[in-house]
Amino acid sequence: MTGLLPGWLRRYRRDLLPGDLLAALVVTMLLVPQGLAYAALAGLPPQLGLYASVAPLLVYALFGSSMVLSVGPVAVASLMTASALTPLADPGSPEYIAGAVLLAFLSGLMLFAFGLLRLGNLARLMSHPVISGFIAGAALLIIVGQLRPLLGVDAEGQSAVTLMVGVVRSLPQLEPLTAAIGVGVLGGLWAARIYLPGLLRHLGLSSAAAALGSRLAPMAAVIAVSALVAVAGLEQRLDVVGTLPAGLPQLVLPALDPALITPLLLPALIIGLIGFVESVAIAQAFARQRGQRIDPDAELRGLGAANVASALSGAFPVTGGFSRTAVNAEGGARTPLAGVFAAVLIALVLVFATGLFRALPMTVLAAVIIIAAVGLVDVAALRRVWRHDRMEGLAFAGTALGVLVVGVEAGVLFGVTLSLVTLIWRASHPHLAVVGRVPGTEHFRNVCRHRVETDARVLLVRIDENLFFGNAEAVQQQLETLVARDPAPDHLVLVMTSVSHVDATALDMLEALDAGLERRGIRLHLAEVKGPVMDGLRGGPLMARLRGEVFLSVNEAFETLAEPERNQ
Amino acid sequence: MTGLLPGWLRRYRRDLLPGDLLAALVVTMLLVPQGLAYAALAGLPPQLGLYASVAPLLVYALFGSSMVLSVGPVAVASLMTASALTPLADPGSPEYIAGAVLLAFLSGLMLFAFGLLRLGNLARLMSHPVISGFIAGAALLIIVGQLRPLLGVDAEGQSAVTLMVGVVRSLPQLEPLTAAIGVGVLGGLWAARIYLPGLLRHLGLSSAAAALGSRLAPMAAVIAVSALVAVAGLEQRLDVVGTLPAGLPQLVLPALDPALITPLLLPALIIGLIGFVESVAIAQAFARQRGQRIDPDAELRGLGAANVASALSGAFPVTGGFSRTAVNAEGGARTPLAGVFAAVLIALVLVFATGLFRALPMTVLAAVIIIAAVGLVDVAALRRVWRHDRMEGLAFAGTALGVLVVGVEAGVLFGVTLSLVTLIWRASHPHLAVVGRVPGTEHFRNVCRHRVETDARVLLVRIDENLFFGNAEAVQQQLETLVARDPAPDHLVLVMTSVSHVDATALDMLEALDAGLERRGIRLHLAEVKGPVMDGLRGGPLMARLRGEVFLSVNEAFETLAEPERNQ
Repeated sequence: MTGLLPGWLRRYRRDLLPGDLLAALVVTMLLVPQGLAYAALAGLPPQLGLYASVAPLLVYALFGSSMVLSVGPVAVASLMTASALTPLADPGSPEYIAGAVLLAFLSGLMLFAFGLLRLGNLARLMSHPVISGFIAGAALLIIVGQLRPLLGVDAEGQSAVTLMVGVVRSLPQLEPLTAAIGVGVLGGLWAARIYLPGLLRHLGLSSAAAALGSRLAPMAAVIAVSALVAVAGLEQRLDVVGTLPAGLPQLVLPALDPALITPLLLPALIIGLIGFVESVAIAQAFARQRGQRIDPDAELRGLGAANVASALSGAFPVTGGFSRTAVNAEGGARTPLAGVFAAVLIALVLVFATGLFRALPMTVLAAVIIIAAVGLVDVAALRRVWRHDRMEGLAFAGTALGVLVVGVEAGVLFGVTLSLVTLIWRASHPHLAVVGRVPGTEHFRNVCRHRVETDARVLLVRIDENLFFGNAEAVQQQLETLVARDPAPDHLVLVMTSVSHVDATALDMLEALDAGLERRGIRLHLAEVKGPVMDGLRGGPLMARLRGEVFLSVNEAFETLAEPERNQ
Repeated sequence: MTGLLPGWLRRYRRDLLPGDLLAALVVTMLLVPQGLAYAALAGLPPQLGLYASVAPLLVYALFGSSMVLSVGPVAVASLMTASALTPLADPGSPEYIAGAVLLAFLSGLMLFAFGLLRLGNLARLMSHPVISGFIAGAALLIIVGQLRPLLGVDAEGQSAVTLMVGVVRSLPQLEPLTAAIGVGVLGGLWAARIYLPGLLRHLGLSSAAAALGSRLAPMAAVIAVSALVAVAGLEQRLDVVGTLPAGLPQLVLPALDPALITPLLLPALIIGLIGFVESVAIAQAFARQRGQRIDPDAELRGLGAANVASALSGAFPVTGGFSRTAVNAEGGARTPLAGVFAAVLIALVLVFATGLFRALPMTVLAAVIIIAAVGLVDVAALRRVWRHDRMEGLAFAGTALGVLVVGVEAGVLFGVTLSLVTLIWRASHPHLAVVGRVPGTEHFRNVCRHRVETDARVLLVRIDENLFFGNAEAVQQQLETLVARDPAPDHLVLVMTSVSHVDATALDMLEALDAGLERRGIRLHLAEVKGPVMDGLRGGPLMARLRGEVFLSVNEAFETLAEPERNQ
């Protein structure tokens, strides 16, 4: 029986308990306002954000591999949920809620299945710049969208641009009280983010405690404004959360309606994968600090099970969140037991304290979301990537722009395509170097950069890239240009030191190259072919027609071919 | 003014004329039955196949770069035309024909624009196995579809499987006369394909002439069966081509209806790109035999202009065809003037000889199409690819299966995705080798394959792949496993000989790796970093935090780190 328990639980030591308990407490303080806010962002009743913060946390603790990842509702997945469901139903309607449940269910099943199939590698389809670009774009879209509840205006718009125009146009209709509270809380949270840690340190708190304290600002704002509104009797003049049903979530069986499943399959896949990629990145960052390991397949199963649990609680897609994970780690969490405690605390809130949020204005939740979203726009990363490589910088900015202009799902696909096209593009511009022998050694170096010995009859070309369909044509053209010199060489030796793979397209190319060289009286040779590459060539059509030799080393090729008295 | 003429025309010599004329004659003999047949395959009136064989040939001769490519209707593009238009209109209806014209027009504009933008590299998005797989799948789909006119049965079906089931089910309703003629012609063409070249050589023809003679079998079948049907008065009992309008095509301006353009944009792009990829492959194969060059950008412009010309003639998408190009080359074509002559000959047929095909049964055209399609299924290529690499063999078979089961357009996208996923997959399983010094030399080789000197404190690892988002994670994991040995090394040296590029994701990885090693007291060094890679690293966050050194050679690293008396 103990074999079924996760390793961390079997090895649990009592001295870890205080850290896990404290972390659970501070995570709960952040999770309550975030849960309410992200449910609103997803177009769902606020209590669903709390429902999504009980069972998923328990289930993730059983299946996941991260010691500190805090699973629950997150901004980007909530935005994507809204974007997938809005075309199908009215936000907040029973059909809409059923759709959200189905999204979590499908996405959970897919992730869990991918985990069983050990497809953790799926996360590698997106590069860091593309992921950062996607998250930045989604965050900007969230910020623009949240200006509506923040200011109390009505505006429609599919893309960030049309939405922004709508918001600006409807500014004259803003509700002054809503806007005043919203902008005030936003300013307060902003100031807390920037000045509170320093202030707390000044008051004598340790640096970690100060950082942690400043994270509680959203909860403080929620409680303070709710109390103020209730005391001042402003509830009628504001859009407030209202009375939430008290009690734990009921078991909900997802409605498996094929007419609803079909349009949700692709969004469920994308929400699941994006959530997975984000979670793994967060979990790995924290695991490295502690010298721990993340198992991507276990993460797939953990997040998959958490989403199924969220669906069965009647809630929406969940995944690992960055700010909560940071709070969890800073709060001293050492094992997933912190998540279990947090789930218990949220359950207590649901049973005993839902009345707390009755007078909470929606504009406060909008301010909480906006502050969280601002933290997702990583301008420093864009600057760093841009400096390193213009093309990757363009992929970053292009993905962000794609999300803003076309929407979140199209933005993801656009980003993945950009990643892949960049890859092909780069590989299709292979580097070839004509090499010669460094005098007195057996080393061969680029003739353009070093003083080396060469022989007019023997052209030695080093291929600095794997040969595959993306660059076969370009390599052939470059080689043909190189041998088209005057006088023509008698021998072309391809130095394969950097070639770890030759695919079928490149094999066709090498055959065609050899045939073309044969007509010009030039013999093709290979040198320093790696073992696995040679295994692939052996018995194939190239080796059948190749009249040249396969040399073990470039030096052997040079010695054999460049000295006619030995060679002929 | 002469500067506007293509180079081949300015340099034309009279001694090339006989070859170009003869080639034009034999190409015309093949183009007439193929044109009629492929128009029928596309669901269009037969004469449109001849219309698509006049202006496009003239225009390609002006813009293209191949000396022998024969442009005109081809099987795969015709199938794709039918597949794009069938959901939108009834085959043969005025709307359907307008759609075909629009497809050619849009696809031509796109290709021409890509040519101006020098996007000839687009062709590299598909590997040879995927292209062969796509063509094989499309050919099988064509064969199954043509069983209907061949046997005179009615059957519906979207995929090859449902279509095949439909054909088998409706076999009891087949028209005996149609089926007898169709199967007879099919058998005759098959026999001609296999035995006629040998027979003709036996009769004293040269090998080239025999091959060429056997290519005229379709035209012979068309003329013989038409004459027989007319003489025997069977026209009423068969589905025949009927009276074609005599005369040249009229100028048609494409109807630019946005409601029609939108659904045709993607099909037009795919038809254009597939046609381009096929054409370039054919043109390059023939150019290599003659030591000539193909300019992919000129091909884009040539095929683009040819498709626009086809649209303005009221016809459908065209591209380079393999069998006609072979006939053209075997017939002695030396310049695109052969294409110009062929266009003139087709024009003469249109003006004077359309009556010839009045009694031609459609079943004969179906037999012509089936024989051509059989030649497109390259089983030898599949066997070769499979032997070289299982994964590429799967991509071949998977693309073919995708076309058969889901359809041509989805099949293309599926194939491209397979190409890219294969690429990522391969690159995400990078090869790392622990190396040591070959005694008495400065060479470093894999410790698993060679007897080499090592030092327990210095771990030298050669990275045999570019570092990018697809393999960064895997490389890090492998390196962490390597350093987790006992006793732990003091130094990890990454030998970067095979690394030509490090992307932003991999740079993040190297930073994280260094941070992780630092906590374990292991120092990270780099060796043999290529110039462009070093340029990218310099000034970046990795170099800022790296405590180790960047060595010019592995030997230098080994000498410096492995001998403490020198090092400390």
